[in-house]
Amino acid sequence: MNLKPLYDRIVVEPLAAEEKTKGGIVLPDTAKEKPQIGMVIAVGAGRIDDKGQRVVPEVKVGEKVIYASYAGTEFKNDGAKLLILKESDILAILE
Amino acid sequence: MNLKPLYDRIVVEPLAAEEKTKGGIVLPDTAKEKPQIGMVIAVGAGRIDDKGQRVVPEVKVGEKVIYASYAGTEFKNDGAKLLILKESDILAILE
Amino acid sequence: MNLKPLYDRIVVEPLAAEEKTKGGIVLPDTAKEKPQIGMVIAVGAGRIDDKGQRVVPEVKVGEKVIYASYAGTEFKNDGAKLLILKESDILAILE
Amino acid sequence: MNLKPLYDRIVVEPLAAEEKTKGGIVLPDTAKEKPQIGMVIAVGAGRIDDKGQRVVPEVKVGEKVIYASYAGTEFKNDGAKLLILKESDILAILE
Amino acid sequence: MNLKPLYDRIVVEPLAAEEKTKGGIVLPDTAKEKPQIGMVIAVGAGRIDDKGQRVVPEVKVGEKVIYASYAGTEFKNDGAKLLILKESDILAILE
Amino acid sequence: MNLKPLYDRIVVEPLAAEEKTKGGIVLPDTAKEKPQIGMVIAVGAGRIDDKGQRVVPEVKVGEKVIYASYAGTEFKNDGAKLLILKESDILAILE
Amino acid sequence: MNLKPLYDRIVVEPLAAEEKTKGGIVLPDTAKEKPQIGMVIAVGAGRIDDKGQRVVPEVKVGEKVIYASYAGTEFKNDGAKLLILKESDILAILE
Repeated sequence: MNLKPLYDRIVVEPLAAEEKTKGGIVLPDTAKEKPQIGMVIAVGAGRIDDKGQRVVPEVKVGEKVIYASYAGTEFKNDGAKLLILKESDILAILE
Repeated sequence: MNLKPLYDRIVVEPLAAEEKTKGGIVLPDTAKEKPQIGMVIAVGAGRIDDKGQRVVPEVKVGEKVIYASYAGTEFKNDGAKLLILKESDILAILE
Repeated sequence: MNLKPLYDRIVVEPLAAEEKTKGGIVLPDTAKEKPQIGMVIAVGAGRIDDKGQRVVPEVKVGEKVIYASYAGTEFKNDGAKLLILKESDILAILE
Repeated sequence: MNLKPLYDRIVVEPLAAEEKTKGGIVLPDTAKEKPQIGMVIAVGAGRIDDKGQRVVPEVKVGEKVIYASYAGTEFKNDGAKLLILKESDILAILE
Repeated sequence: MNLKPLYDRIVVEPLAAEEKTKGGIVLPDTAKEKPQIGMVIAVGAGRIDDKGQRVVPEVKVGEKVIYASYAGTEFKNDGAKLLILKESDILAILE
Repeated sequence: MNLKPLYDRIVVEPLAAEEKTKGGIVLPDTAKEKPQIGMVIAVGAGRIDDKGQRVVPEVKVGEKVIYASYAGTEFKNDGAKLLILKESDILAILE
Repeated sequence: MNLKPLYDRIVVEPLAAEEKTKGGIVLPDTAKEKPQIGMVIAVGAGRIDDKGQRVVPEVKVGEKVIYASYAGTEFKNDGAKLLILKESDILAILE
């Protein structure tokens, strides 16, 4: 089933532990605010600012991102564990 | 009875469990923020922004949506169990 | 006595139980946020937005509305039990 | 002594119980948010909006108003018990 | 020592009890939000609004004002007990 | 080491007790919100307002200021005990 | 792996204790709000203001900064312990 997030919402697929450490990134379990790494699956059209204009999200489908793990709503789609979060919960893109 | 939601409010009919899993979506009971799936029944004309312009909602009548289950106000209309929520409580459209 | 609500305030007369169910609407006692049905008695001239313009309310005198029951201030006028609330506490118009 | 309220502040003289019920208005003691009736004694020049313009208050000296009783600051002036509140604490004008 | 308050801050000298009642004003000890009377000693140049313009304060040096007693920062200057507060903590000017 | 505060941040050097009382200012220990006196050491370029313009701070290097003592972040630079705070935590300039 | 922070987020590498005191800066353990010193590793393109314009960050890659230690999200990249924080958590640049 296809997912179209609203406004500034982003659908992310969390990466398994082995994939995460491959790139050199290690996410500590003891961190105050536990970060996670995931792949961007779908991107909303962007929030609407005070002037009525869309603010197009910075992240794009297929990018690997670090996000705050407390954020978002979990569900499964065709067997894949997914997460819907706001773009403001995404901290950085991994290149 | 016909329902006309005000501003950015949306009327949603929650889908029964069997209908939800049909499309491949599984909503975990253990999720931090339990999501639900429903059908959009009525859409408000949109909130009014700081420039006095309507912000027309992204969702349309007949679309299937994922929404945060803690949100909204429940009632029955002609036997159907319905929910009025704000568009910002809707996370994504299922296509 | 005549009542002129200020800005975006609305005066509503709550409907008795038998009148509420007539139109097919049932309001559950167990709902998280108990909704109520009432008749609009008086409407303020609207709040003033950031540009100094009035935002004229969507609801009109004589319309039946669903509103959040936790909202508003109760009083009696010429024997009628009334409620003053903000338009943002009104969820939908019943037609 | 003369009182000049600042910005959107209003000076109100609470009405005695017998005067309140005269007009047909009854204010319940058991209400969630106890309303009161009073006479407007002085009106500020209005708050200044984001564009630097005064927003002239809707209420005028001599009008009878319903206001939220939790609001405001009490004091006495020349024997009269008065209350300074913000115009947003005034719910409606009684005509 | 001379005091120049920043932005919308005001320096007030609280009046002694006998001076307060002279003008006919009585401030109840039992009030929910205890008001005080003081003399304006110094006035800031005003806060800067969203358009980058100064909002010149309404109060002027030498005016007697009622202010909320919970507000402000106390200190002594050349023996005089003073208070720095924001203009929004001042309720009215006494004339 | 040279310090360049960001935006509306200000670096202040708290004054010793004897220097504080010299000018006639006495800061009570028992005050609700304990004020302090300090010398301005460095000033940020100012916050950026909603129109994208810098709001240049009112305080200047070398001025003596009263500030709220609960505010700011302490550290030492070349032996001097310093404090970084926001300009909004500064109450007044002493001249 | 390369890191591209979103909007007004900044990647900082915390400096070891000996490097911190080299420049003359001492950060007290007992401070109310413990400051830290770090090197800026990556800078986001800036937040988007109400007019839809980017607000380019003041800090630049390679600068030494003081930041509030309660802030940000810790992780490791290629062995280096890093922190992603918002530019508003950075207090000053050390030159």
